[in-house]
Amino acid sequence: MFILSSPSGTGKTTIAHMLLKQVQGIGMSVSVTTRPMRPGEVDGVDYHFVDGDEFDRMVEAGEFLEWARVFGHCYGTPKAQIKAGLREGHDFLFDIDWQGTQQLYQRAETDVVRVFLLPPSIAELENRLRGRNTDSEEVIQGRMDRAKAEISHWDGYDYVVVNRDIDECYAKVRTILEAERMRRARQTGLVDFTRELMR
Amino acid sequence: MFILSSPSGTGKTTIAHMLLKQVQGIGMSVSVTTRPMRPGEVDGVDYHFVDGDEFDRMVEAGEFLEWARVFGHCYGTPKAQIKAGLREGHDFLFDIDWQGTQQLYQRAETDVVRVFLLPPSIAELENRLRGRNTDSEEVIQGRMDRAKAEISHWDGYDYVVVNRDIDECYAKVRTILEAERMRRARQTGLVDFTRELMR
Repeated sequence: MFILSSPSGTGKTTIAHMLLKQVQGIGMSVSVTTRPMRPGEVDGVDYHFVDGDEFDRMVEAGEFLEWARVFGHCYGTPKAQIKAGLREGHDFLFDIDWQGTQQLYQRAETDVVRVFLLPPSIAELENRLRGRNTDSEEVIQGRMDRAKAEISHWDGYDYVVVNRDIDECYAKVRTILEAERMRRARQTGLVDFTRELMR
Repeated sequence: MFILSSPSGTGKTTIAHMLLKQVQGIGMSVSVTTRPMRPGEVDGVDYHFVDGDEFDRMVEAGEFLEWARVFGHCYGTPKAQIKAGLREGHDFLFDIDWQGTQQLYQRAETDVVRVFLLPPSIAELENRLRGRNTDSEEVIQGRMDRAKAEISHWDGYDYVVVNRDIDECYAKVRTILEAERMRRARQTGLVDFTRELMR
């Protein structure tokens, strides 16, 4: 499980899309949500759509690796799906915040790599959060506060990468993923391979 | 401290030279040895040359991170030199066997990354150890036995890379080094950098 976190406006979603497109063997899990289906969405592909009672039941039954409520709707990562995928040798990418990361880390029962992306400077962060300049100063200040709160959790991650340039940042994140795949403990078949070498 | 180990004939020394030549900020420590100086060697550059009594004193005083006796001569890695270098942000490369790795890991008091290289097959291993075909079957068998004994320690390493092709293997080892440098715990300055972002 490969976790990417960052304050909003730091390129996390862009980096995640680049990884999914360019790297073999990594995908995202299909989340469970209580929010209504939008036109064009497919149940079981975009999300598993459930009602509030079913979501609560899944929370109670411990069926989520992590879940959160965002703007009144619930989103969760189903444990069974991830565990089955990992057993088959798939990696999963998570684009989640520090709270989701903590939940997932505690409930994972398997291995997790946590990467945190930082903006290059406070000026650049504010620039990116100002967006189209149509938002009120209060809205922007709220975004800055949330971004700073997220940044304060940088020390709960295994790796930290500063996003000065999107391609350079992507290359670094990809390097981390590729190296972590070479860890002895994640390579299946080494026992048989080395036994053959020592015959 | 970046450790490369492998059975002989698996390209460890070639990979080590490539890393030293192409990657910034990593070097080898200057070892202490009891073997006589050879023509062209410089004391303090190629080795620190000492006599047996001085070497024994250093062993007793715990001044080595690891040491070994090879063909009647002693070789050791001085702790003080490495610790000073690490404090200044240098990485050190070690081209040592499993015994040196265990010693270094236990005495390091700081962080170590251990990479083990494997040959692609037993046939290839034997091929490489046969060398120029001028050695007796007994000599070759001795080499094979030592190589297999080294291979049996693959599970004491953080990363395992199979050397099918020297350039591909080098790229993988370099990926591991670059990723490990991005670990949060190894990046100096993050506390100040993030404090600035959260102002």
